[in-house]
Amino acid sequence: MELALESNAFFMGVEYLAVFCCGLMGGLCAVRKNYDLIAMLITAWLTALGGGIVRDIVLGSLPPVGIADKGFVITALVSGLAVAVFHPEVDKLKWSMLTIDALSVGLFAVNGTSKAMILGMSGMTSVFLGMITALGGGLVRDMLLNDVPMFIRDKHWYAIPSAVGSVLTVFVCKGVQARVLNFNAEVALDVSIVVLVVVMRLLSVKFNITMPGAMVRHEV
Amino acid sequence: MELALESNAFFMGVEYLAVFCCGLMGGLCAVRKNYDLIAMLITAWLTALGGGIVRDIVLGSLPPVGIADKGFVITALVSGLAVAVFHPEVDKLKWSMLTIDALSVGLFAVNGTSKAMILGMSGMTSVFLGMITALGGGLVRDMLLNDVPMFIRDKHWYAIPSAVGSVLTVFVCKGVQARVLNFNAEVALDVSIVVLVVVMRLLSVKFNITMPGAMVRHEV
Amino acid sequence: MELALESNAFFMGVEYLAVFCCGLMGGLCAVRKNYDLIAMLITAWLTALGGGIVRDIVLGSLPPVGIADKGFVITALVSGLAVAVFHPEVDKLKWSMLTIDALSVGLFAVNGTSKAMILGMSGMTSVFLGMITALGGGLVRDMLLNDVPMFIRDKHWYAIPSAVGSVLTVFVCKGVQARVLNFNAEVALDVSIVVLVVVMRLLSVKFNITMPGAMVRHEV
Repeated sequence: MELALESNAFFMGVEYLAVFCCGLMGGLCAVRKNYDLIAMLITAWLTALGGGIVRDIVLGSLPPVGIADKGFVITALVSGLAVAVFHPEVDKLKWSMLTIDALSVGLFAVNGTSKAMILGMSGMTSVFLGMITALGGGLVRDMLLNDVPMFIRDKHWYAIPSAVGSVLTVFVCKGVQARVLNFNAEVALDVSIVVLVVVMRLLSVKFNITMPGAMVRHEV
Repeated sequence: MELALESNAFFMGVEYLAVFCCGLMGGLCAVRKNYDLIAMLITAWLTALGGGIVRDIVLGSLPPVGIADKGFVITALVSGLAVAVFHPEVDKLKWSMLTIDALSVGLFAVNGTSKAMILGMSGMTSVFLGMITALGGGLVRDMLLNDVPMFIRDKHWYAIPSAVGSVLTVFVCKGVQARVLNFNAEVALDVSIVVLVVVMRLLSVKFNITMPGAMVRHEV
Repeated sequence: MELALESNAFFMGVEYLAVFCCGLMGGLCAVRKNYDLIAMLITAWLTALGGGIVRDIVLGSLPPVGIADKGFVITALVSGLAVAVFHPEVDKLKWSMLTIDALSVGLFAVNGTSKAMILGMSGMTSVFLGMITALGGGLVRDMLLNDVPMFIRDKHWYAIPSAVGSVLTVFVCKGVQARVLNFNAEVALDVSIVVLVVVMRLLSVKFNITMPGAMVRHEV
């Protein structure tokens, strides 16, 4: 099984960066609540890799990458250690962190969806699995720390870009399976999708674009 | 694999109705907490189908119906959209909603138990899986929205009827496997079990019948 | 598949005792929050067996022992009933309960890790699965009752002893696989690991030994 965005050292580097930054964000939540080092390590690990763990359990692709892949696990744990020391710096990097978090959402959505398509899931199932990969890590972290999950709390677009990215990835995968797209086209499109997810998320925060809530109806 | 209560259009219609109404109840929780449309859709989906997803993961029957069956997924998502518009009406339907919620608990208990028995699980395991199907959706919703699960919070009977329904379904399935019951008898008994679950739940709410708590002992 | 610490009646007895006491601790949390009998039973069951259930789902070893093994399930449910009556006594047994809880953490870590190694997982994956078995029950209980998990809240060593126990168990299993250790040596070492975990946990509580938190840095 080969994912387009894991096909060369550059993409793998980006994925490790995404895992590392997700871990930083997760560990930072534990630091803010004054938990100890173990809590930071566990929170960093689950934030970085929890989405993929849930995806692999739902796919039946066991043991999950998030507990079996030495590189990813060590990266996640190192991010937990790093945040114990560098939390003041991490805390200041709001826009950088926001960007890298959006990058990880995009990357995890594309890779999660592609992995599901390669394992023969339908398009709809793959979209769910892509979104689970993208959003699951933050969900597990927030359930652990007793917060309402960020994709529910955050009024800005968070789930929407991951949904858009996952749906577009399904079309790319279908194009590849129909031999309409070659490998290079797949890579180019996957990268574009990740960029689109990042841009959607950043624009939403920058210009305070939010989803509507329930319709307000006073006449009833 | 054929579930008795999915054997004809009427039963399928009832199941779709149960999914839809569970979704309405879930979405309503998100509306009450002022979350956005995405939160409503996710909450509606997980309330309606989360129990079955957990059951399928525990059974190893992957991918779970709740992310793979187009009909159920679309029904659940439509219920999330519907509640965004019709939440004032849904909010007023207390007894109707209570009844349909009880109906879904009964139906999901019977179908969850039957599915486990058909897949060769023991009676005890099937009871657990039936109860997980019946109660899991509300559990996932409440964990997501940071509430204590309803089957713990609600003093009225909620888990008890699902347990009774699941246990009775095991006996029906054993009767079918032993060729003591034919298909029509199975359908009739399954329907009776669903009705029993609904009646138990409604009587408990109506007459404020509750389970005892811990024994109060002042002498210690 | 044979686990060293399930190889004779004495070890099985210890495991049942651990399940029973975990169940008591879980049920007690429900009693303290004034929930009803059903909540006590569910909390007792999930505290006692939830860690193993999560481990078996992650391992793909289905159906999980925690819903399929009559002996363990009945033990867990009986502990839930027992705590409804004997909660004042259980509440007073602080150090006894702490010791038996530590015993269950040690035992579940060793058995969880061994089970994963026997099923062919790598050492790192087995450590995760051992820790999940040891800590998962309390995690599920605390998520259910809307608390921050004990291994995050409790400043004393809780996750650390389970990690040490799991890592040491991996070495023992590797010794057995390399035929350096015979069965009796494995049993002796496994027992020593459990004792070590208990001692680490108790010393940490007794002498208030805690993990450091994030580094405090005022210069930034």
